[in-house]
Amino acid sequence: MYYGALEAGGTKMVCAIGDADKNIIDRISIPTGTPDQSVPAMIDYFKKYDISALGIGTFGPADINPNSPTYGSIMRSPKKAWEGFSLYKAFTDALGCLVVVDTDVNAAAWGEYLYGALKGLNSGMYLTVGTGIGGGIISDGRLIHGMEHPETGHILIPRRTGDDIPCTCRFHQSCVEGLASGPMLERRTGMKGKDIPADSPVWDLEAFYIAEALVNYTMCYSVERIVLGGGVMDNKFLFPMIRNYYTELLSGYIDMPQVKDTDTYIVPAGLEGNQGIIGAMNLF
Amino acid sequence: MYYGALEAGGTKMVCAIGDADKNIIDRISIPTGTPDQSVPAMIDYFKKYDISALGIGTFGPADINPNSPTYGSIMRSPKKAWEGFSLYKAFTDALGCLVVVDTDVNAAAWGEYLYGALKGLNSGMYLTVGTGIGGGIISDGRLIHGMEHPETGHILIPRRTGDDIPCTCRFHQSCVEGLASGPMLERRTGMKGKDIPADSPVWDLEAFYIAEALVNYTMCYSVERIVLGGGVMDNKFLFPMIRNYYTELLSGYIDMPQVKDTDTYIVPAGLEGNQGIIGAMNLF
Repeated sequence: MYYGALEAGGTKMVCAIGDADKNIIDRISIPTGTPDQSVPAMIDYFKKYDISALGIGTFGPADINPNSPTYGSIMRSPKKAWEGFSLYKAFTDALGCLVVVDTDVNAAAWGEYLYGALKGLNSGMYLTVGTGIGGGIISDGRLIHGMEHPETGHILIPRRTGDDIPCTCRFHQSCVEGLASGPMLERRTGMKGKDIPADSPVWDLEAFYIAEALVNYTMCYSVERIVLGGGVMDNKFLFPMIRNYYTELLSGYIDMPQVKDTDTYIVPAGLEGNQGIIGAMNLF
Repeated sequence: MYYGALEAGGTKMVCAIGDADKNIIDRISIPTGTPDQSVPAMIDYFKKYDISALGIGTFGPADINPNSPTYGSIMRSPKKAWEGFSLYKAFTDALGCLVVVDTDVNAAAWGEYLYGALKGLNSGMYLTVGTGIGGGIISDGRLIHGMEHPETGHILIPRRTGDDIPCTCRFHQSCVEGLASGPMLERRTGMKGKDIPADSPVWDLEAFYIAEALVNYTMCYSVERIVLGGGVMDNKFLFPMIRNYYTELLSGYIDMPQVKDTDTYIVPAGLEGNQGIIGAMNLF
């Protein structure tokens, strides 16, 4: 008996096979391209194993409401070829098995909750900071959904005095994604994110904005821990900087031991990049 | 068979008795004072009916974790006489019945979810805007708790250009409560909130800040509807102003029918001031 998992990302589609215990025994990566380019290859891959169920964590916004007629579809998206495409329908039709679709960050949060840095807690958050910023939240042992899904990267936050560079979000003037995502780092420095040296002053501002966001998530969700992943967070030197600003901005308002020990409150992913695919494997 | 409910507020304690169907058949209001002043009177009241259970919605911050040794206690508080006082212990010891404690805004959200403006939905939020600002959130039919409880009034939001009056929160420079609560309205105008005329320019700023907060709550919780209560929201002319700013600030990012119809997305309480006591009556 085999299970399938798909982590559908903006640049690549990671497909994995799990055994009866959902241990990953094989995986491939396929360039995202257009649906016509990548979906048939993914179907061929999953067909080889005759999987009994498929869990999908996808880039969004996506319709993840199982009662919706467009469940499992990509909604408005800069990837025009994917807009309106139903992952649920494509894989259900081709594979004839149970297919469950959630967002990439919800899958990652779920993976961290089951096997990673959020294991054993009752609540927690996974936030990815990369090309986009988004989060998945566990509350009382369950993922927060809603009418659509949280869009935590688009909360409005105060700009730091003196920072007046237009933010990269085309909807908002001062949201977390617009102020702190990879593209904004590039706009601020004129360099690709991976080329920005660790001593660049831009990291101080980056840590400040991420900390503002984390303070707001603590206020909104009262989560016991926040896991940070994504390409920007591969710069591990950001963690202590974020923790310091978090403490400064929270300003003692929340009087709980969890938030006072920022070394265990704001942490890297426990599954080291596999949180998304492991979470997807466990969505069903 | 009778049940009890207590809405513990900063100025008054509303106590109510419900029949076997939890219909409220009697209620009294006692000035909050100190615990020594008001608790014995409340106990006497509930004893008259030999209640089988008591639901309490209290001002906070409060310990609402049933597994905590200090469950049902008021935490740090400007009301020093109440700091550390355990509502749970006081009423359990005196009444010998089941006692359940949650926050005032969680109780109000629960009341609105069961019988008011959130009835029939799967998710929603109740936000009070008054002396303080705080909210209770229903997600997938359940209240969001966490390590403590949400403190939605203390999320950091952008100030509007030109507004540089120090905010009234002693912890933060730019949080919702600090910028938009009753005390800040008084600081801005030099008038008591109830004396500020409807044509004062302060209401435009007030609506702007509440709208910023609501955009953030939509992003964080993906709730299907937001109910606004509290003393400030008795100024019903604020609703259309908030709705207009909400649409402007959301800026089309969430492409869901719920948020496009702001008349049904941002609404007054359906239980018209009784949401807290009715919710408290239904916490057990």
